[in-house]
Amino acid sequence: MKAAVLHQYDPKLKNQDFVAWEEIPEPKLKRDTEVLVRIGGAGVCRTDLHIIEGIWREKVDVQLPYVMGHENAGWVEEVGRGVEGFKKGDPVICHPLNLNCTALAARLGHDMHVEGAEFPGISTNGGYAELLRTGASSLIKLPQTLAPKDVAPHADAGLTAYHVAKKAAEHLRPGERVVVIGVGGLGHIAIQVLSVVCPADIIALDRSEIALELAKECGAHHTAKADENQVEAIRALTDGKGAEAVIDFVGEGNSIANGLAMTRNNGAYYIVGYGGEIRISAIDMITTERRIIGNLVGNYAELVELMELANRGKVHLATKHYRLDEANQALRDLNQGKVRGRAVLVP
Amino acid sequence: MKAAVLHQYDPKLKNQDFVAWEEIPEPKLKRDTEVLVRIGGAGVCRTDLHIIEGIWREKVDVQLPYVMGHENAGWVEEVGRGVEGFKKGDPVICHPLNLNCTALAARLGHDMHVEGAEFPGISTNGGYAELLRTGASSLIKLPQTLAPKDVAPHADAGLTAYHVAKKAAEHLRPGERVVVIGVGGLGHIAIQVLSVVCPADIIALDRSEIALELAKECGAHHTAKADENQVEAIRALTDGKGAEAVIDFVGEGNSIANGLAMTRNNGAYYIVGYGGEIRISAIDMITTERRIIGNLVGNYAELVELMELANRGKVHLATKHYRLDEANQALRDLNQGKVRGRAVLVP
Amino acid sequence: MKAAVLHQYDPKLKNQDFVAWEEIPEPKLKRDTEVLVRIGGAGVCRTDLHIIEGIWREKVDVQLPYVMGHENAGWVEEVGRGVEGFKKGDPVICHPLNLNCTALAARLGHDMHVEGAEFPGISTNGGYAELLRTGASSLIKLPQTLAPKDVAPHADAGLTAYHVAKKAAEHLRPGERVVVIGVGGLGHIAIQVLSVVCPADIIALDRSEIALELAKECGAHHTAKADENQVEAIRALTDGKGAEAVIDFVGEGNSIANGLAMTRNNGAYYIVGYGGEIRISAIDMITTERRIIGNLVGNYAELVELMELANRGKVHLATKHYRLDEANQALRDLNQGKVRGRAVLVP
Amino acid sequence: MKAAVLHQYDPKLKNQDFVAWEEIPEPKLKRDTEVLVRIGGAGVCRTDLHIIEGIWREKVDVQLPYVMGHENAGWVEEVGRGVEGFKKGDPVICHPLNLNCTALAARLGHDMHVEGAEFPGISTNGGYAELLRTGASSLIKLPQTLAPKDVAPHADAGLTAYHVAKKAAEHLRPGERVVVIGVGGLGHIAIQVLSVVCPADIIALDRSEIALELAKECGAHHTAKADENQVEAIRALTDGKGAEAVIDFVGEGNSIANGLAMTRNNGAYYIVGYGGEIRISAIDMITTERRIIGNLVGNYAELVELMELANRGKVHLATKHYRLDEANQALRDLNQGKVRGRAVLVP
Repeated sequence: MKAAVLHQYDPKLKNQDFVAWEEIPEPKLKRDTEVLVRIGGAGVCRTDLHIIEGIWREKVDVQLPYVMGHENAGWVEEVGRGVEGFKKGDPVICHPLNLNCTALAARLGHDMHVEGAEFPGISTNGGYAELLRTGASSLIKLPQTLAPKDVAPHADAGLTAYHVAKKAAEHLRPGERVVVIGVGGLGHIAIQVLSVVCPADIIALDRSEIALELAKECGAHHTAKADENQVEAIRALTDGKGAEAVIDFVGEGNSIANGLAMTRNNGAYYIVGYGGEIRISAIDMITTERRIIGNLVGNYAELVELMELANRGKVHLATKHYRLDEANQALRDLNQGKVRGRAVLVP
Repeated sequence: MKAAVLHQYDPKLKNQDFVAWEEIPEPKLKRDTEVLVRIGGAGVCRTDLHIIEGIWREKVDVQLPYVMGHENAGWVEEVGRGVEGFKKGDPVICHPLNLNCTALAARLGHDMHVEGAEFPGISTNGGYAELLRTGASSLIKLPQTLAPKDVAPHADAGLTAYHVAKKAAEHLRPGERVVVIGVGGLGHIAIQVLSVVCPADIIALDRSEIALELAKECGAHHTAKADENQVEAIRALTDGKGAEAVIDFVGEGNSIANGLAMTRNNGAYYIVGYGGEIRISAIDMITTERRIIGNLVGNYAELVELMELANRGKVHLATKHYRLDEANQALRDLNQGKVRGRAVLVP
Repeated sequence: MKAAVLHQYDPKLKNQDFVAWEEIPEPKLKRDTEVLVRIGGAGVCRTDLHIIEGIWREKVDVQLPYVMGHENAGWVEEVGRGVEGFKKGDPVICHPLNLNCTALAARLGHDMHVEGAEFPGISTNGGYAELLRTGASSLIKLPQTLAPKDVAPHADAGLTAYHVAKKAAEHLRPGERVVVIGVGGLGHIAIQVLSVVCPADIIALDRSEIALELAKECGAHHTAKADENQVEAIRALTDGKGAEAVIDFVGEGNSIANGLAMTRNNGAYYIVGYGGEIRISAIDMITTERRIIGNLVGNYAELVELMELANRGKVHLATKHYRLDEANQALRDLNQGKVRGRAVLVP
Repeated sequence: MKAAVLHQYDPKLKNQDFVAWEEIPEPKLKRDTEVLVRIGGAGVCRTDLHIIEGIWREKVDVQLPYVMGHENAGWVEEVGRGVEGFKKGDPVICHPLNLNCTALAARLGHDMHVEGAEFPGISTNGGYAELLRTGASSLIKLPQTLAPKDVAPHADAGLTAYHVAKKAAEHLRPGERVVVIGVGGLGHIAIQVLSVVCPADIIALDRSEIALELAKECGAHHTAKADENQVEAIRALTDGKGAEAVIDFVGEGNSIANGLAMTRNNGAYYIVGYGGEIRISAIDMITTERRIIGNLVGNYAELVELMELANRGKVHLATKHYRLDEANQALRDLNQGKVRGRAVLVP
């Protein structure tokens, strides 16, 4: 089959072509409970750029060359003999992990904390290719209303946004406020999800006026420009005391310090974006009794829930489609800030 | 009345006498719902040393001279005309805040996050004195089994330990582990509380063998010495992966970095002690999905619960009694590490 | 002052006039923390008819003659000397209980379970009058957007609907279903609240097509006619297995048996309406692991939250106004099913 | 292999021999993910008597002849080719269901609510035999401290007790009370579990003084005789108002009515035993805001947790051993109340 293969890291993203579109062997099922999925859409994520930069090298054990792509949807192509409930041709979205449901962590709802689970596109070959191998237990059948190419980014971007939005929704009440820092691929989904799952006022924060416009369309009640006065702007919208929840999809530059500063006493700061460092004195944490919460992608059941919302038209993805053999163009566009919403590779 | 009055800060704790035992006017009720309490026991807390050092000056608006003492118990001496349910002579323990129950934060169970509440001993005159003014709604009647001088430190030290232990207990399951860093005034209570409210294994960590002995008496299942190999020691006790909960009563030196390092993926690090700084990269927080939780003292209902446990003999305080006019001796002993458990001033 | 006074019970509601519009002494403050409220709106509730019938006689200790009216809003007229934060002229809505915030139950958020609290309009004189006595701690200041006569029924009808909707929302996920039985005064609010606080699909059930139309305007996703096939109708909408939550605002006739029958395994049946009896075998409860949940009115914080939603235009009350001296007309209209939404007495 | 086979129902339990000890074909794996377990212990449960009576016939689709026994532990005998993590000879306890971990209900932690799951001993052949077929995902490896014959009843009796105790523990605080009705096979485990997972006072209620003695050994703080004054007895122990939680392991006769009567306002009544009927007026449910909660056996993760407690010596089973070919004797003894704790069939 054909795939877009990463052969070498490129710490400063200087290359013209990051991956090579070439013939590689088709994947083979490793377990009877696995499937091959014919890719209908493979989302292109900022994490892919970070992989190319080599940032994930120390976190994940993967050998080059390999195939990126961890936001995958398509059609079942082949099923292992132990697979029940799926057949060739079924349209599906893939939870990003090759899930092992029998692990205790999975049974407790913590799919991402199962030891040793494969992460296609991160720790093994992913979806920048014609075919993807993963576990049948990672698949969710799509309703007719949802095409693989339109929902693929929900597998990771959407699911991460949903996961953190749901955590925040657990403690947010009417009259309280949640700040969404960064209205990009994840942020614009988070705003839509928050609109549905929580009754709090949503305040969107971004450097770009265009992003703030998108935020309003997605359901934000207030917007604020991320400039040097952003903490004051948020305080002005929150009785001078900050928001009960702050979700930071940027996580670098001054975003973290500002995000903590705009978190109200007894409130929670959710960190999703990365690149920066959290620094705060113990006495400041204690006297304010704030919480700092790390966030990964959600579990399988949360992806099911997100698909239910998508199927009801409650969560819509802004996507830009590229052919699979145009992966480099998509990556370059993403790197240069030319993608509104989310880039998706399609066959 | 007589009181131990703080007249000046002493950043390096060099003085022989920190406070002056002298005559000051008796407190007067400010509201009909307030009471005067005749002090039966006033706990001496490390925070008092920090107040003398001036550390709290920027956090709290208080003018010297004033009277410290925020862990108070005694007998009702005078009640305002709007007070119901208490009469002169009733033995009571005082929630550390002069509580305003009608504030929305209080109704949500967040007594410590009520705006503008007085904090006797911190923001206004406290219990290093013969009489204390506070709100009737801060009082809990003591059963005959519990003498004011024996339970006073529960008002803050005990209540803080109970509050954080209860937070941790909410997510701890049988077979999981909680590390208690620092088996001092708070830590030894936390271990006792954890033994009662949660089914997880308790691992106590301290530099001192004596403290670790105390930990075992309090119910710790494992102990580890806080030396340069403490992270490895904890990992050895936790499948190499760390504990699901870590409660840090030290919060300075390398305690924070080590505490975070021994917190398992998807686990929580609770910070109670202070002095140090939290530093961690966003990517480390995200990939591990850990939580960092700030902790203050608990609410009124939690103090009621703690008294129920104390009354049943489930939580015992190690105390050392000094006369009220020996406050300087108690403070010096505390500063020099000569107090086992908790120092309490008695009439 | 003038008030509509209930002098005698009328078990079959045969009288033309249930109450007498007459002069009675003005109420006097019993505590320094109480207030008088000049009534701007007093909701007329089906419970008032049940009171007249004598149904509540055995549940509540009240002596005739007295004044009904437990859904009150208006303007502060007089404040006790211990009252802070309110002054004459402030527009307010009254939590239905004369709240005692210092009771332990109240501090735990269970305002309705405080022992011995007065319940104006139920256990003591209520709001079918020019003036009402209650506690300052029961008051919520209204924003300019909300007039007392328009929000009064939120004090009980709205708050009960909000309370139960919030309980259900705690466990409802996208793709799950909640059935609302009875789209009357409470039901039409519950549907609006559910639309905001929970992502599940809402199915409204009522005998009346007009009520079902109202349900759709309020945000119901599906409607079903309450006839002899209602259980089948709900099963047809829920994979044949019933809904994860059923909220029964009728609670009499076959509503309870049907409501239980349409509750899915592992689901919850919330009972709010009354008059009927719950009968179910233990083995049926166990094998299905269903829950049956009793529901009262909500607490003060929930009323604050409901006002936040009302202020944002998220929850709208259908009301029909009568003058205070037309209380009998309002009660007769309610009894004869002539009130759409909620009757409110205004000065 | 040999098995104790049920050939016919016996509604009044009049037969001398309920089952026949005879040769039947060995079970064969139906899926690659299944295993055969050599029985080391098979618990004998009151439900088995109810099965013989035919009570379960309408709830479960099973054809006679078949083999009862749903509380099984032993050693892995054969593993399917898709099984990972288990090998011949491993000592194991079996979750009572043949679990399908990929079902959405299972991923949400509701193993018992997975549609169509086999229930060995109830809906298909169980453990009154030399060999049992079940899913590898139902197995938990036993530590050396726990022998199959000693822990088998934990698979159902223990797990049900643990499941309901944990539900109650979620809302019980120090100073509150939980009543355990019926100190038999389940009740004596529930008391032990409650002692570990919750800080409330435990009140045991039983007709038998011997059972109440056992309750005290298990950790009950108070006991009361189940006679005609039991409601008064419980009220006397609970400020006259009843307990915050009541767990009813009897569920027949007057146990349900009494259990509800001793449940405090805002409290929960947990029904586990069966045979009787729940009857309560809607108005009584509403004014008291009580909850009635149905209870089944727990999920896999809860069985893991229970084994952790057993392994730490926190939960001990009183057992009486019979040989597998003495199943009739065990059933007769159980029926005649001659078994203290739990009967277990062993090879």
